[in-house]
Amino acid sequence: MFSKTYTIRFEHCDPAGIVFYPRYFEILNDIMEVWLAEEISVSIGNLIFERQIAVPTVYVEAEFPAASYLEDVLTVTLQVTKLGTSSMTLLVEAMCEDEVRFRIRPIIVFTDIRGAKKKSMPIPEDMRREIERYL
Amino acid sequence: MFSKTYTIRFEHCDPAGIVFYPRYFEILNDIMEVWLAEEISVSIGNLIFERQIAVPTVYVEAEFPAASYLEDVLTVTLQVTKLGTSSMTLLVEAMCEDEVRFRIRPIIVFTDIRGAKKKSMPIPEDMRREIERYL
Amino acid sequence: MFSKTYTIRFEHCDPAGIVFYPRYFEILNDIMEVWLAEEISVSIGNLIFERQIAVPTVYVEAEFPAASYLEDVLTVTLQVTKLGTSSMTLLVEAMCEDEVRFRIRPIIVFTDIRGAKKKSMPIPEDMRREIERYL
Amino acid sequence: MFSKTYTIRFEHCDPAGIVFYPRYFEILNDIMEVWLAEEISVSIGNLIFERQIAVPTVYVEAEFPAASYLEDVLTVTLQVTKLGTSSMTLLVEAMCEDEVRFRIRPIIVFTDIRGAKKKSMPIPEDMRREIERYL
Repeated sequence: MFSKTYTIRFEHCDPAGIVFYPRYFEILNDIMEVWLAEEISVSIGNLIFERQIAVPTVYVEAEFPAASYLEDVLTVTLQVTKLGTSSMTLLVEAMCEDEVRFRIRPIIVFTDIRGAKKKSMPIPEDMRREIERYL
Repeated sequence: MFSKTYTIRFEHCDPAGIVFYPRYFEILNDIMEVWLAEEISVSIGNLIFERQIAVPTVYVEAEFPAASYLEDVLTVTLQVTKLGTSSMTLLVEAMCEDEVRFRIRPIIVFTDIRGAKKKSMPIPEDMRREIERYL
Repeated sequence: MFSKTYTIRFEHCDPAGIVFYPRYFEILNDIMEVWLAEEISVSIGNLIFERQIAVPTVYVEAEFPAASYLEDVLTVTLQVTKLGTSSMTLLVEAMCEDEVRFRIRPIIVFTDIRGAKKKSMPIPEDMRREIERYL
Repeated sequence: MFSKTYTIRFEHCDPAGIVFYPRYFEILNDIMEVWLAEEISVSIGNLIFERQIAVPTVYVEAEFPAASYLEDVLTVTLQVTKLGTSSMTLLVEAMCEDEVRFRIRPIIVFTDIRGAKKKSMPIPEDMRREIERYL
Protein backbone atom coordinates (compact mmCIF):
# COMPACT_ATOMS: atom_id res chain seq x y z
CA MET A 1 0.00 0.00 0.00
CA PHE A 2 1.37 3.40 -1.03
CA SER A 3 0.68 6.39 1.20
CA LYS A 4 1.13 10.19 1.11
CA THR A 5 -0.29 13.02 3.19
CA TYR A 6 -2.00 16.10 1.77
CA THR A 7 -2.95 19.28 3.63
CA ILE A 8 -6.19 20.88 2.47
CA ARG A 9 -5.32 24.34 1.15
CA PHE A 10 -7.31 27.43 0.19
CA GLU A 11 -7.36 26.40 -3.45
CA HIS A 12 -9.17 23.14 -2.59
CA CYS A 13 -12.07 24.78 -0.73
CA ASP A 14 -15.33 26.34 -1.87
CA PRO A 15 -17.40 29.22 -0.41
CA ALA A 16 -19.17 26.74 1.88
CA GLY A 17 -15.73 26.26 3.48
CA ILE A 18 -15.31 22.62 2.46
CA VAL A 19 -13.36 20.86 -0.26
CA PHE A 20 -14.82 21.36 -3.73
CA TYR A 21 -14.84 17.67 -4.74
CA PRO A 22 -13.33 18.04 -8.24
CA ARG A 23 -10.16 18.97 -6.32
CA TYR A 24 -10.16 15.45 -4.82
CA PHE A 25 -9.65 14.09 -8.33
CA GLU A 26 -6.61 16.35 -8.66
CA ILE A 27 -5.27 14.83 -5.44
CA LEU A 28 -6.07 11.36 -6.80
CA ASN A 29 -4.17 12.16 -9.97
CA ASP A 30 -1.25 13.53 -7.98
CA ILE A 31 -0.84 10.41 -5.85
CA MET A 32 -1.02 8.21 -8.97
CA GLU A 33 1.77 10.23 -10.61
CA VAL A 34 3.94 10.10 -7.50
CA TRP A 35 3.30 6.35 -7.12
CA LEU A 36 4.22 5.66 -10.76
CA ALA A 37 7.43 7.72 -10.52
CA GLU A 38 8.58 6.52 -7.09
CA GLU A 39 7.32 2.95 -6.88
CA ILE A 40 6.72 1.68 -10.41
CA SER A 41 9.80 3.58 -11.63
CA VAL A 42 8.10 4.83 -14.79
CA SER A 43 7.18 8.50 -14.59
CA ILE A 44 4.07 9.65 -16.43
CA GLY A 45 6.25 11.84 -18.68
CA ASN A 46 8.46 8.90 -19.58
CA LEU A 47 5.39 6.74 -20.19
CA ILE A 48 3.63 9.19 -22.51
CA PHE A 49 6.43 10.96 -24.32
CA GLU A 50 9.03 8.19 -24.58
CA ARG A 51 7.11 4.92 -24.45
CA GLN A 52 4.02 6.43 -26.16
CA ILE A 53 1.68 4.83 -23.66
CA ALA A 54 -1.20 6.78 -22.15
CA VAL A 55 -3.07 5.66 -19.03
CA PRO A 56 -6.55 7.24 -19.28
CA THR A 57 -9.15 6.69 -16.60
CA VAL A 58 -12.14 5.12 -18.33
CA TYR A 59 -14.36 4.67 -15.28
CA VAL A 60 -14.39 6.02 -11.76
CA GLU A 61 -16.61 5.51 -8.74
CA ALA A 62 -16.30 7.70 -5.67
CA GLU A 63 -17.86 8.07 -2.23
CA PHE A 64 -17.50 11.15 -0.06
CA PRO A 65 -18.79 10.05 3.37
CA ALA A 66 -17.75 13.24 5.19
CA ALA A 67 -16.59 16.73 4.21
CA SER A 68 -12.99 18.01 4.53
CA TYR A 69 -12.15 21.47 5.81
CA LEU A 70 -9.31 23.96 5.30
CA GLU A 71 -6.06 22.68 6.88
CA ASP A 72 -7.31 19.16 7.46
CA VAL A 73 -4.45 16.71 6.96
CA LEU A 74 -5.48 13.73 4.85
CA THR A 75 -3.59 10.46 4.77
CA VAL A 76 -4.19 9.11 1.30
CA THR A 77 -3.46 5.46 0.48
CA LEU A 78 -3.32 3.78 -2.90
CA GLN A 79 -3.63 0.07 -3.64
CA VAL A 80 -4.34 -2.05 -6.70
CA THR A 81 -7.49 -4.15 -6.33
CA LYS A 82 -7.59 -5.76 -9.76
CA LEU A 83 -4.96 -6.27 -12.44
CA GLY A 84 -6.19 -7.32 -15.89
CA THR A 85 -4.34 -7.77 -19.17
CA SER A 86 -4.47 -4.12 -20.12
CA SER A 87 -6.28 -2.46 -17.21
CA MET A 88 -5.94 -1.98 -13.49
CA THR A 89 -8.43 -0.96 -10.82
CA LEU A 90 -7.13 1.14 -7.94
CA LEU A 91 -8.60 1.94 -4.54
CA VAL A 92 -7.51 5.35 -3.30
CA GLU A 93 -8.73 6.27 0.14
CA ALA A 94 -8.34 9.44 2.23
CA MET A 95 -8.55 9.36 6.02
CA CYS A 96 -8.53 12.29 8.42
CA GLU A 97 -7.88 10.75 11.80
CA ASP A 98 -10.39 7.86 11.85
CA GLU A 99 -12.85 9.33 9.37
CA VAL A 100 -13.01 8.41 5.69
CA ARG A 101 -13.12 11.53 3.53
CA PHE A 102 -13.10 9.88 0.12
CA ARG A 103 -12.88 6.42 -1.34
CA ILE A 104 -12.28 6.43 -5.08
CA ARG A 105 -12.00 3.47 -7.43
CA PRO A 106 -10.64 4.39 -10.87
CA ILE A 107 -10.15 1.93 -13.73
CA ILE A 108 -7.11 2.77 -15.84
CA VAL A 109 -6.47 1.36 -19.31
CA PHE A 110 -3.01 1.13 -20.82
CA THR A 111 -3.30 2.64 -24.28
CA ASP A 112 -0.94 2.61 -27.25
CA ILE A 113 -0.85 6.15 -28.64
CA ARG A 114 1.49 5.56 -31.59
CA GLY A 115 -0.41 6.31 -34.77
CA ALA A 116 -3.81 7.91 -35.15
CA LYS A 117 -5.79 4.93 -33.90
CA LYS A 118 -5.35 4.65 -30.14
CA LYS A 119 -5.95 1.16 -28.78
CA SER A 120 -5.62 -0.69 -25.50
CA MET A 121 -2.47 -2.76 -25.05
CA PRO A 122 -1.11 -5.28 -22.53
CA ILE A 123 0.48 -3.73 -19.45
CA PRO A 124 4.26 -3.78 -20.13
CA GLU A 125 5.95 -6.66 -18.27
CA ASP A 126 8.43 -4.45 -16.36
CA MET A 127 5.55 -2.37 -15.01
CA ARG A 128 3.30 -5.33 -14.26
CA ARG A 129 5.90 -6.87 -11.93
CA GLU A 130 6.11 -3.63 -9.94
CA ILE A 131 2.34 -3.05 -9.91
CA GLU A 132 1.72 -6.58 -8.57
CA ARG A 133 3.43 -5.60 -5.32
CA TYR A 134 0.47 -3.26 -4.62
CA LEU A 135 -2.24 -5.87 -5.16
CA MET B 1 -33.89 17.60 -19.98
CA PHE B 2 -31.59 20.60 -19.50
CA SER B 3 -28.84 21.23 -22.03
CA LYS B 4 -25.84 23.51 -22.44
CA THR B 5 -22.84 23.48 -24.77
CA TYR B 6 -19.22 23.73 -23.63
CA THR B 7 -16.17 24.28 -25.79
CA ILE B 8 -13.04 22.47 -24.60
CA ARG B 9 -10.44 25.11 -23.81
CA PHE B 10 -6.72 25.10 -23.12
CA GLU B 11 -7.30 25.00 -19.37
CA HIS B 12 -9.22 21.70 -19.65
CA CYS B 13 -6.45 19.84 -21.50
CA ASP B 14 -3.36 17.96 -20.36
CA PRO B 15 0.06 17.46 -22.00
CA ALA B 16 -1.33 14.42 -23.83
CA GLY B 17 -3.61 16.91 -25.59
CA ILE B 18 -6.87 15.55 -24.17
CA VAL B 19 -9.18 16.69 -21.38
CA PHE B 20 -7.75 16.13 -17.91
CA TYR B 21 -10.82 14.38 -16.45
CA PRO B 22 -11.03 16.30 -13.14
CA ARG B 23 -12.00 19.23 -15.40
CA TYR B 24 -15.12 17.27 -16.43
CA PHE B 25 -16.28 17.47 -12.83
CA GLU B 26 -15.90 21.26 -13.00
CA ILE B 27 -18.11 21.24 -16.10
CA LEU B 28 -20.58 18.99 -14.24
CA ASN B 29 -20.63 21.41 -11.35
CA ASP B 30 -21.11 24.34 -13.71
CA ILE B 31 -24.13 22.85 -15.45
CA MET B 32 -25.70 21.99 -12.07
CA GLU B 33 -25.30 25.60 -10.91
CA VAL B 34 -26.74 26.99 -14.13
CA TRP B 35 -29.65 24.51 -13.97
CA LEU B 36 -30.46 25.42 -10.36
CA ALA B 37 -30.36 29.16 -11.10
CA GLU B 38 -32.21 29.10 -14.42
CA GLU B 39 -34.63 26.20 -14.09
CA ILE B 40 -35.16 25.52 -10.38
CA SER B 41 -35.05 29.26 -9.63
CA VAL B 42 -32.85 28.84 -6.56
CA SER B 43 -29.26 29.86 -7.14
CA ILE B 44 -26.52 28.02 -5.26
CA GLY B 45 -25.64 31.27 -3.45
CA ASN B 46 -29.22 31.81 -2.34
CA LEU B 47 -29.45 28.16 -1.24
CA ILE B 48 -26.28 28.18 0.87
CA PHE B 49 -26.05 31.70 2.25
CA GLU B 50 -29.74 32.56 2.67
CA ARG B 51 -31.55 29.25 3.09
CA GLN B 52 -28.56 27.59 4.82
CA ILE B 53 -28.90 24.49 2.70
CA ALA B 54 -25.88 22.78 1.16
CA VAL B 55 -26.09 20.23 -1.65
CA PRO B 56 -22.95 18.08 -1.35
CA THR B 57 -22.26 15.23 -3.74
CA VAL B 58 -21.95 12.09 -1.61
CA TYR B 59 -21.42 9.60 -4.41
CA VAL B 60 -20.49 9.81 -8.06
CA GLU B 61 -20.01 7.28 -10.81
CA ALA B 62 -18.52 8.24 -14.16
CA GLU B 63 -17.66 6.67 -17.50
CA PHE B 64 -15.36 8.24 -20.06
CA PRO B 65 -15.87 6.15 -23.21
CA ALA B 66 -13.82 8.44 -25.49
CA ALA B 67 -11.36 11.29 -25.05
CA SER B 68 -12.14 14.96 -25.79
CA TYR B 69 -9.71 17.26 -27.56
CA LEU B 70 -9.01 21.01 -27.58
CA GLU B 71 -11.88 22.93 -29.24
CA ASP B 72 -14.30 20.02 -29.25
CA VAL B 73 -17.81 21.29 -28.63
CA LEU B 74 -19.68 19.18 -26.12
CA THR B 75 -23.45 19.16 -25.75
CA VAL B 76 -24.04 18.41 -22.10
CA THR B 77 -27.47 17.31 -20.89
CA LEU B 78 -28.75 17.00 -17.33
CA GLN B 79 -31.69 14.96 -16.12
CA VAL B 80 -32.92 13.69 -12.77
CA THR B 81 -33.12 9.90 -12.64
CA LYS B 82 -34.20 9.43 -9.02
CA LEU B 83 -35.79 11.76 -6.51
CA GLY B 84 -35.84 10.63 -2.87
CA THR B 85 -36.93 12.40 0.30
CA SER B 86 -33.67 14.26 0.78
CA SER B 87 -31.53 13.18 -2.16
CA MET B 88 -31.55 13.22 -5.95
CA THR B 89 -29.59 11.26 -8.55
CA LEU B 90 -28.67 13.05 -11.74
CA LEU B 91 -27.49 11.78 -15.10
CA VAL B 92 -25.22 14.26 -16.83
CA GLU B 93 -24.04 13.25 -20.27
CA ALA B 94 -21.70 14.91 -22.76
CA MET B 95 -21.91 14.21 -26.47
CA CYS B 96 -19.58 15.40 -29.24
CA GLU B 97 -21.51 14.76 -32.44
CA ASP B 98 -22.70 11.16 -31.93
CA GLU B 99 -19.98 10.10 -29.49
CA VAL B 100 -20.42 9.98 -25.71
CA ARG B 101 -17.54 11.71 -23.97
CA PHE B 102 -18.70 11.34 -20.38
CA ARG B 103 -21.69 9.94 -18.55
CA ILE B 104 -21.71 10.94 -14.88
CA ARG B 105 -24.23 9.99 -12.20
CA PRO B 106 -23.88 12.06 -9.02
CA ILE B 107 -26.03 11.63 -5.89
CA ILE B 108 -26.71 14.91 -4.12
CA VAL B 109 -28.01 15.18 -0.57
CA PHE B 110 -29.87 18.25 0.70
CA THR B 111 -28.17 19.19 3.94
CA ASP B 112 -29.20 21.56 6.72
CA ILE B 113 -26.11 23.60 7.63
CA ARG B 114 -27.60 25.66 10.47
CA GLY B 115 -25.77 24.77 13.68
CA ALA B 116 -22.61 22.75 14.07
CA LYS B 117 -24.22 19.41 13.34
CA LYS B 118 -24.97 19.19 9.63
CA LYS B 119 -27.74 16.73 8.79
CA SER B 120 -29.75 15.67 5.74
CA MET B 121 -33.18 17.28 5.34
CA PRO B 122 -36.21 16.86 3.08
CA ILE B 123 -35.92 18.62 -0.29
CA PRO B 124 -37.84 21.90 0.11
CA GLU B 125 -41.31 21.65 -1.49
CA ASP B 126 -40.85 24.64 -3.82
CA MET B 127 -37.69 23.05 -5.21
CA ARG B 128 -39.13 19.54 -5.43
CA ARG B 129 -41.93 20.70 -7.72
CA GLU B 130 -39.41 22.24 -10.10
CA ILE B 131 -36.99 19.32 -9.95
CA GLU B 132 -39.78 16.83 -10.78
CA ARG B 133 -40.05 18.39 -14.25
CA TYR B 134 -36.59 16.94 -15.02
CA LEU B 135 -37.39 13.39 -13.95
CA MET C 1 -12.93 46.23 -28.04
CA PHE C 2 -13.99 42.62 -27.50
CA SER C 3 -16.39 41.83 -24.69
CA LYS C 4 -17.85 38.74 -22.95
CA THR C 5 -19.73 38.23 -19.68
CA TYR C 6 -18.76 35.70 -17.03
CA THR C 7 -20.80 34.64 -14.02
CA ILE C 8 -18.76 33.88 -10.92
CA ARG C 9 -19.35 30.22 -10.02
CA PHE C 10 -18.64 28.03 -7.02
CA GLU C 11 -15.39 26.80 -8.56
CA HIS C 12 -14.01 30.37 -8.72
CA CYS C 13 -14.53 31.14 -5.01
CA ASP C 14 -12.49 30.45 -1.91
CA PRO C 15 -13.53 29.78 1.72
CA ALA C 16 -13.59 33.56 2.36
CA GLY C 17 -16.45 33.62 -0.17
CA ILE C 18 -14.63 35.69 -2.78
CA VAL C 19 -12.91 34.83 -6.05
CA PHE C 20 -9.59 33.03 -5.59
CA TYR C 21 -7.54 35.28 -7.88
CA PRO C 22 -5.68 32.56 -9.83
CA ARG C 23 -9.16 31.84 -11.28
CA TYR C 24 -9.13 35.32 -12.81
CA PHE C 25 -6.18 34.24 -14.93
CA GLU C 26 -8.25 31.29 -16.15
CA ILE C 27 -10.98 33.77 -17.16
CA LEU C 28 -8.31 35.92 -18.85
CA ASN C 29 -7.07 32.91 -20.77
CA ASP C 30 -10.62 31.98 -21.74
CA ILE C 31 -11.44 35.37 -23.20
CA MET C 32 -8.15 35.38 -25.14
CA GLU C 33 -8.99 31.99 -26.67
CA VAL C 34 -12.51 33.08 -27.58
CA TRP C 35 -11.21 36.33 -29.06
CA LEU C 36 -8.59 34.53 -31.18
CA ALA C 37 -11.15 32.02 -32.48
CA GLU C 38 -14.02 34.42 -33.09
CA GLU C 39 -12.32 37.68 -34.03
CA ILE C 40 -8.81 36.88 -35.24
CA SER C 41 -10.08 33.72 -36.95
CA VAL C 42 -7.16 31.59 -35.77
CA SER C 43 -8.07 29.23 -32.98
CA ILE C 44 -5.42 28.42 -30.41
CA GLY C 45 -5.52 24.76 -31.51
CA ASN C 46 -4.96 25.72 -35.12
CA LEU C 47 -2.16 28.08 -34.09
CA ILE C 48 -0.25 25.54 -31.98
CA PHE C 49 -0.87 22.22 -33.68
CA GLU C 50 -1.08 23.28 -37.33
CA ARG C 51 0.93 26.49 -37.62
CA GLN C 52 3.37 25.46 -34.85
CA ILE C 53 3.14 28.86 -33.21
CA ALA C 54 2.78 29.23 -29.44
CA VAL C 55 1.67 32.44 -27.72
CA PRO C 56 3.13 32.29 -24.20
CA THR C 57 2.57 35.08 -21.71
CA VAL C 58 6.02 36.35 -20.72
CA TYR C 59 4.92 39.15 -18.40
CA VAL C 60 1.71 40.07 -16.64
CA GLU C 61 0.67 42.90 -14.36
CA ALA C 62 -2.65 42.82 -12.54
CA GLU C 63 -4.68 44.99 -10.16
CA PHE C 64 -7.62 43.73 -8.14
CA PRO C 65 -9.26 46.90 -6.77
CA ALA C 66 -12.33 45.14 -5.33
CA ALA C 67 -13.34 41.55 -4.57
CA SER C 68 -15.88 39.52 -6.59
CA TYR C 69 -18.50 37.30 -4.98
CA LEU C 70 -20.41 34.16 -5.96
CA GLU C 71 -22.91 34.92 -8.79
CA ASP C 72 -21.51 38.34 -9.60
CA VAL C 73 -21.76 38.93 -13.33
CA LEU C 74 -18.56 40.38 -14.77
CA THR C 75 -18.36 42.19 -18.09
CA VAL C 76 -14.86 41.48 -19.33
CA THR C 77 -13.36 43.54 -22.15
CA LEU C 78 -10.20 42.90 -24.14
CA GLN C 79 -8.20 45.40 -26.15
CA VAL C 80 -4.72 45.56 -27.63
CA THR C 81 -2.67 48.42 -26.22
CA LYS C 82 0.63 47.79 -27.98
CA LEU C 83 1.55 45.79 -31.05
CA GLY C 84 5.24 45.11 -31.66
CA THR C 85 7.01 43.00 -34.25
CA SER C 86 6.59 39.75 -32.37
CA SER C 87 4.68 40.71 -29.25
CA MET C 88 1.42 42.30 -28.20
CA THR C 89 0.26 43.85 -24.93
CA LEU C 90 -3.38 43.41 -23.98
CA LEU C 91 -5.57 45.20 -21.47
CA VAL C 92 -8.26 42.92 -20.07
CA GLU C 93 -10.64 44.55 -17.65
CA ALA C 94 -13.57 43.16 -15.63
CA MET C 95 -16.39 45.38 -14.45
CA CYS C 96 -19.30 44.50 -12.17
CA GLU C 97 -21.77 47.31 -12.63
CA ASP C 98 -19.53 50.39 -12.24
CA GLU C 99 -16.81 48.75 -10.16
CA VAL C 100 -13.52 47.45 -11.58
CA ARG C 101 -12.82 43.93 -10.35
CA PHE C 102 -9.60 43.27 -12.23
CA ARG C 103 -7.39 45.04 -14.72
CA ILE C 104 -4.76 42.74 -16.23
CA ARG C 105 -2.05 43.60 -18.74
CA PRO C 106 -0.38 40.52 -20.25
CA ILE C 107 2.45 40.63 -22.79
CA ILE C 108 2.25 37.78 -25.28
CA VAL C 109 5.11 36.71 -27.54
CA PHE C 110 4.59 34.85 -30.80
CA THR C 111 6.95 31.90 -30.68
CA ASP C 112 8.06 29.47 -33.36
CA ILE C 113 7.90 25.97 -31.84
CA ARG C 114 9.22 24.01 -34.81
CA GLY C 115 12.47 22.33 -33.78
CA ALA C 116 13.94 22.06 -30.32
CA LYS C 117 15.00 25.69 -30.07
CA LYS C 118 11.93 27.84 -29.54
CA LYS C 119 12.37 31.45 -30.64
CA SER C 120 10.24 34.56 -31.04
CA MET C 121 8.95 35.29 -34.56
CA PRO C 122 7.13 38.14 -36.33
CA ILE C 123 3.36 38.11 -35.86
CA PRO C 124 1.94 36.49 -39.04
CA GLU C 125 0.58 39.13 -41.44
CA ASP C 126 -2.94 37.66 -41.65
CA MET C 127 -3.23 37.82 -37.86
CA ARG C 128 -1.64 41.27 -37.54
CA ARG C 129 -4.29 42.82 -39.77
CA GLU C 130 -7.07 41.40 -37.59
CA ILE C 131 -5.33 42.25 -34.31
CA GLU C 132 -4.88 45.90 -35.41
CA ARG C 133 -8.65 46.35 -35.30
CA TYR C 134 -8.45 45.98 -31.49
CA LEU C 135 -5.73 48.59 -30.97
CA MET D 1 14.27 33.41 2.78
CA PHE D 2 11.72 30.61 2.80
CA SER D 3 12.08 27.79 0.30
CA LYS D 4 10.08 24.78 -0.90
CA THR D 5 10.35 22.49 -3.93
CA TYR D 6 7.50 21.70 -6.30
CA THR D 7 7.42 19.04 -8.99
CA ILE D 8 5.50 19.99 -12.13
CA ARG D 9 2.62 17.54 -12.50
CA PHE D 10 0.15 16.66 -15.23
CA GLU D 11 -2.44 19.01 -13.78
CA HIS D 12 -0.10 22.01 -14.20
CA CYS D 13 0.54 21.47 -17.91
CA ASP D 14 -1.32 22.46 -21.05
CA PRO D 15 -1.60 20.77 -24.47
CA ALA D 16 1.58 22.54 -25.57
CA GLY D 17 3.30 20.45 -22.88
CA ILE D 18 4.33 23.39 -20.69
CA VAL D 19 2.94 24.85 -17.48
CA PHE D 20 -0.34 26.73 -17.95
CA TYR D 21 0.68 29.91 -16.12
CA PRO D 22 -2.46 30.35 -13.96
CA ARG D 23 -1.17 27.21 -12.20
CA TYR D 24 1.92 29.19 -11.13
CA PHE D 25 -0.37 31.44 -9.11
CA GLU D 26 -1.73 28.33 -7.37
CA ILE D 27 1.86 27.39 -6.49
CA LEU D 28 2.44 30.97 -5.30
CA ASN D 29 -0.63 30.76 -3.10
CA ASP D 30 0.48 27.40 -1.76
CA ILE D 31 3.91 28.59 -0.70
CA MET D 32 2.36 31.66 1.00
CA GLU D 33 0.01 29.42 3.00
CA VAL D 34 2.81 27.08 4.01
CA TRP D 35 5.04 30.04 4.97
CA LEU D 36 2.30 31.63 7.11
CA ALA D 37 1.56 28.35 8.89
CA GLU D 38 5.15 27.18 9.39
CA GLU D 39 7.13 30.40 9.78
CA ILE D 40 4.72 33.16 10.83
CA SER D 41 2.80 30.69 13.04
CA VAL D 42 -0.61 31.97 11.93
CA SER D 43 -2.36 29.63 9.53
CA ILE D 44 -4.62 31.14 6.89
CA GLY D 45 -7.60 29.36 8.48
CA ASN D 46 -6.81 30.81 11.89
CA LEU D 47 -6.31 34.24 10.36
CA ILE D 48 -9.61 34.32 8.46
CA PHE D 49 -12.00 32.33 10.62
CA GLU D 50 -10.72 33.17 14.11
CA ARG D 51 -9.00 36.54 13.82
CA GLN D 52 -11.34 37.73 11.00
CA ILE D 53 -8.42 39.04 8.97
CA ALA D 54 -8.20 38.45 5.23
CA VAL D 55 -5.02 38.89 3.20
CA PRO D 56 -6.14 39.62 -0.36
CA THR D 57 -3.65 40.21 -3.15
CA VAL D 58 -4.41 43.67 -4.55
CA TYR D 59 -1.65 43.83 -7.13
CA VAL D 60 0.67 41.34 -8.74
CA GLU D 61 3.44 41.57 -11.29
CA ALA D 62 4.96 38.46 -12.85
CA GLU D 63 7.68 37.52 -15.32
CA PHE D 64 7.98 34.12 -16.95
CA PRO D 65 11.43 34.13 -18.56
CA ALA D 66 11.38 30.44 -19.55
CA ALA D 67 8.79 27.67 -19.77
CA SER D 68 8.52 24.75 -17.34
CA TYR D 69 7.87 21.20 -18.45
CA LEU D 70 6.25 18.09 -16.94
CA GLU D 71 8.37 16.70 -14.07
CA ASP D 72 10.64 19.72 -13.79
CA VAL D 73 11.54 20.29 -10.16
CA LEU D 74 11.24 23.94 -9.16
CA THR D 75 12.92 25.44 -6.13
CA VAL D 76 10.61 28.24 -5.06
CA THR D 77 11.80 30.92 -2.65
CA LEU D 78 9.77 33.56 -0.83
CA GLN D 79 11.03 36.78 0.69
CA VAL D 80 9.49 40.03 1.88
CA THR D 81 10.78 43.04 -0.05
CA LYS D 82 8.66 45.76 1.55
CA LEU D 83 6.69 45.94 4.79
CA GLY D 84 4.25 48.83 5.19
CA THR D 85 1.72 49.62 7.90
CA SER D 86 -0.97 47.38 6.48
CA SER D 87 0.60 45.82 3.41
CA MET D 88 3.57 43.71 2.41
CA THR D 89 5.26 43.08 -0.92
CA LEU D 90 6.68 39.63 -1.55
CA LEU D 91 9.14 38.32 -4.10
CA VAL D 92 8.49 34.70 -4.99
CA GLU D 93 10.92 33.17 -7.42
CA ALA D 94 11.10 29.72 -9.04
CA MET D 95 14.37 28.27 -10.26
CA CYS D 96 14.93 25.05 -12.20
CA GLU D 97 18.63 24.41 -11.93
CA ASP D 98 20.10 27.82 -12.88
CA GLU D 99 17.15 29.06 -14.92
CA VAL D 100 14.44 31.40 -13.60
CA ARG D 101 10.98 30.07 -14.41
CA PHE D 102 8.91 32.72 -12.70
CA ARG D 103 9.47 35.82 -10.63
CA ILE D 104 6.25 37.10 -9.03
CA ARG D 105 5.78 40.18 -6.85
CA PRO D 106 2.39 40.24 -5.10
CA ILE D 107 1.23 43.04 -2.79
CA ILE D 108 -0.93 41.76 0.06
CA VAL D 109 -3.15 43.97 2.21
CA PHE D 110 -4.23 43.00 5.73
CA THR D 111 -7.99 43.51 5.80
CA ASP D 112 -10.45 43.58 8.70
CA ILE D 113 -13.46 41.48 7.66
CA ARG D 114 -15.61 42.01 10.76
CA GLY D 115 -18.79 43.80 9.73
CA ALA D 116 -20.03 44.51 6.22
CA LYS D 117 -17.48 47.19 5.44
CA LYS D 118 -14.11 45.56 4.87
CA LYS D 119 -11.17 47.89 5.44
CA SER D 120 -7.40 47.70 5.58
CA MET D 121 -5.85 47.42 9.04
CA PRO D 122 -2.35 47.53 10.56
CA ILE D 123 -0.45 44.24 10.37
CA PRO D 124 -0.89 42.62 13.83
CA GLU D 125 2.24 43.10 15.97
CA ASP D 126 2.83 39.39 16.64
CA MET D 127 2.83 38.74 12.90
CA ARG D 128 4.94 41.78 12.01
CA ARG D 129 7.79 40.59 14.23
CA GLU D 130 7.86 37.24 12.45
CA ILE D 131 7.45 38.71 8.96
CA GLU D 132 10.40 41.09 9.54
CA ARG D 133 12.73 38.08 9.65
CA TYR D 134 12.04 37.58 5.92
CA LEU D 135 12.82 41.14 4.87
